[in-house]
Amino acid sequence: MSDWLNEDEHRTWRSVLRMHAQLTAALAQALKTDSDMSISDYEVLAILSEAPDRVLRARELRCELQWEKSRLAHHIRRMEQRGYVRRDACTDDLRAPLIRLTETGLGAIRAAAPTHVARVRELFFAALAPAQARAMREAAEAVLENVARHAENETTEEN
Amino acid sequence: MSDWLNEDEHRTWRSVLRMHAQLTAALAQALKTDSDMSISDYEVLAILSEAPDRVLRARELRCELQWEKSRLAHHIRRMEQRGYVRRDACTDDLRAPLIRLTETGLGAIRAAAPTHVARVRELFFAALAPAQARAMREAAEAVLENVARHAENETTEEN
Repeated sequence: MSDWLNEDEHRTWRSVLRMHAQLTAALAQALKTDSDMSISDYEVLAILSEAPDRVLRARELRCELQWEKSRLAHHIRRMEQRGYVRRDACTDDLRAPLIRLTETGLGAIRAAAPTHVARVRELFFAALAPAQARAMREAAEAVLENVARHAENETTEEN
Repeated sequence: MSDWLNEDEHRTWRSVLRMHAQLTAALAQALKTDSDMSISDYEVLAILSEAPDRVLRARELRCELQWEKSRLAHHIRRMEQRGYVRRDACTDDLRAPLIRLTETGLGAIRAAAPTHVARVRELFFAALAPAQARAMREAAEAVLENVARHAENETTEEN
């Protein structure tokens, strides 16, 4: 088959998938041990803490995380029970709730971040020369642009 | 804080996470539409189809996927119900079952693979010059070696 991945491409693709799986597993385990927090909690808290006024619409958060709607709803309910976030009705659109980081959530991410960042540095950046990290970022950004362009084209074709 | 990620590193790290999230979501959606298969099913079938005799111990499969034990057990049960895999008792060690790809599973991955590979090519490789893909692979492999070395050190320290 002409369009099959050649051996080099196959190895590249497996390495990229494996890197994400191994990194995420190692970081998740460390986060659990160090801060009793799941990596999903950390991701949500990190994104909200960087948002203006520390609040996002559910759909913005979902777009950033690329989670299914039901997964986000379920996860946000659990985080609300732990006091990390609060759902506010959005005055413009009642069906689009706002997810707001609470003081408890901000405290939790501030407490967990230094150790987590140290692990990211130790496991990811320490393995890469500055030029390699730059190459990785440029490649990742090129892929992101490409995926976004394809998603746009599909939306256009559907309309 | 001296060990905080600088702006460049932060952008690199977010891009790498976002690339994986966006790619996985786009590929999962395409796989569902094209082949009525989840990306997790595809991963398991692909790994088994490349294994010698198309069989692996559960722990080897888990090591490759980096899934929690309960997630793998649950997923394998569902794939067994669909006839994709079969669990065999391992004669050397009864507690370590073998997961074997069935003819149905082999048929399913063979039917799904061409379209999936075309999507990987379209979304990932088409965005990258050959040198960029090579740089990405080298960086991913360096990170993988580093994560493995850290895991080994931790095991040594525990003993």
